[in-house]
Amino acid sequence: MRLDDLVTPALVVDAPALEHNLTTMAAALPGERLRPHVKAHKCTALADRQAAVGYGGFTCATVRECEGLAAAGLGDDLLLANEVLDARRLGALVAAGHRVTLCVDSPETVEAAAAGGVREVVIDVNVGLPRCGCPPGEAGALAELAASRGLEVRGVQGYEGHVVGLEDADERTAKCRESMEMLRQAHKAVGGELMTAGGTGTYAINTWASEIQAGTYVLMDSAYGRLNLPFRQAVYVLATVISTSAAGWSVLDAGLKAFGMDHGNPAIDGSSVWFCSDEHLTFSPTRPVGDRVLVTPAHLDPTVAYHERMYLADLASGEVLEIWPVDLRGW
Amino acid sequence: MRLDDLVTPALVVDAPALEHNLTTMAAALPGERLRPHVKAHKCTALADRQAAVGYGGFTCATVRECEGLAAAGLGDDLLLANEVLDARRLGALVAAGHRVTLCVDSPETVEAAAAGGVREVVIDVNVGLPRCGCPPGEAGALAELAASRGLEVRGVQGYEGHVVGLEDADERTAKCRESMEMLRQAHKAVGGELMTAGGTGTYAINTWASEIQAGTYVLMDSAYGRLNLPFRQAVYVLATVISTSAAGWSVLDAGLKAFGMDHGNPAIDGSSVWFCSDEHLTFSPTRPVGDRVLVTPAHLDPTVAYHERMYLADLASGEVLEIWPVDLRGW
Repeated sequence: MRLDDLVTPALVVDAPALEHNLTTMAAALPGERLRPHVKAHKCTALADRQAAVGYGGFTCATVRECEGLAAAGLGDDLLLANEVLDARRLGALVAAGHRVTLCVDSPETVEAAAAGGVREVVIDVNVGLPRCGCPPGEAGALAELAASRGLEVRGVQGYEGHVVGLEDADERTAKCRESMEMLRQAHKAVGGELMTAGGTGTYAINTWASEIQAGTYVLMDSAYGRLNLPFRQAVYVLATVISTSAAGWSVLDAGLKAFGMDHGNPAIDGSSVWFCSDEHLTFSPTRPVGDRVLVTPAHLDPTVAYHERMYLADLASGEVLEIWPVDLRGW
Repeated sequence: MRLDDLVTPALVVDAPALEHNLTTMAAALPGERLRPHVKAHKCTALADRQAAVGYGGFTCATVRECEGLAAAGLGDDLLLANEVLDARRLGALVAAGHRVTLCVDSPETVEAAAAGGVREVVIDVNVGLPRCGCPPGEAGALAELAASRGLEVRGVQGYEGHVVGLEDADERTAKCRESMEMLRQAHKAVGGELMTAGGTGTYAINTWASEIQAGTYVLMDSAYGRLNLPFRQAVYVLATVISTSAAGWSVLDAGLKAFGMDHGNPAIDGSSVWFCSDEHLTFSPTRPVGDRVLVTPAHLDPTVAYHERMYLADLASGEVLEIWPVDLRGW
């Protein structure tokens, strides 16, 4: 099968770029130094590739992601980096022999973990992003509460999500240090082997965390592409020019249902993207009707979540190598 | 089953509001005056409800939507309101006895229609939105080309997509008239029974089109909610409060993978939405952990496309009535 045979829009992954990203990260953060976050790609076949370069633990954002990895034989050490109020499906995974560690940040989520049959937790700590996590000063008491409910506390999590995307590298480093200082204080009070944090934007500078939760690095997007990281753009939406106007624009058959839009428009090399509609993207300069165009997503995670499958291909030769279901979608 | 039993995030449809929207539109534009656009809901069960109030024809944005409607027994008169370069799957539907009409706006798309086995087309005309459609003055020649290739030309399409969302009603009416004047000129040159156009924002004022392609009216979103239309908000994402901070915010378990974001943040009645992350929404004022919250999407179509199913429910009683697969996703 060749790229020209694919129904468009199609999510395509460039095999050499993927390989570069896998090996680059494996050299920088080998083994237990990285816990790849699967929310970025939602694909067990790609997680298999990450396991093949030495990773035994994975980070998940949803219960479904945990279930899918476990079903794919990748359930040796799963961290659900999120709070849940109903942990019964996670408890079922634990009962089936998988290792699942859950984040807790409140008495209610501790209770949910215990009631659902989860045995191991980390204390989620707020390190500056207004989202989940308890204040650093409350982490110790929460760990005690968890222990009193029979839960083993493996350590702390503190995601510096307000830092990972900062384009100024010095600012990114300084703010990462601030966040990790907060997490270290919490870790002192909590104990445990895990101090889990970080993302693609801080994988190289967050030297305080025991492990980094990067996910985007493996496929990349235009937002992280601005940070001068050593990873290559490996994923695109392949689209077809379905209309061209003499007034100066062309239209692709990929739109709001093919791209996550929270980071703005996707990008086309050498072109200006005007706007997206549900199933269209208008751009200039014009291209002939029937041309196929590679479009770079602005934000990887919500883009992948729109697609049923991704096509591993050699973009240079046009050959499709493998078809990978995006099998971790939904909740 | 009750709403409290659902895994969140969950797309829920309020049955009384849906019924109101179905009957309100059926009274305003009965039978052949409306060709409901299924791209808004991507759900054959919901299309069945539209058929039950008198609609025999449907508008689609993708080949997959045509295939799904045909498989569900709703293939009596499908219009693919879009251009395609490979019409073979549509030709297969035609060969199987379904009626499929395809838009064409160029010699290439005429050729694709003929080569793929489609027998009926409409000439897609640009009426002001920089997207698909030939110039009005070229519609006649394109219709002749199509006829010369053995295609029956059923009329013209001209979508006033730059008009449907205008919040000023007078401006919306004036610009709709301008667009439809362009479409009438094209129709004069092309002939045929169809002059298909319009959307939820112009369903009542576009009196020139022979049929209106509205889709959002049946479920609605906050963008169209600002236009003082007689339709009620019928769809929400049900989410759970998973974290609450004493610093003044709460966090839901629904984010960028549950909401189309091109129209901005979704809305919570009486609350301020701060921002969305992949699986989170931060808002204020705070709500207790474990509370369930209904969130109104800003843009319906790309929101529905993230969900595997929608739950028809009576929100007042909390009872779930039916589970409808969102079975027209993908391409």
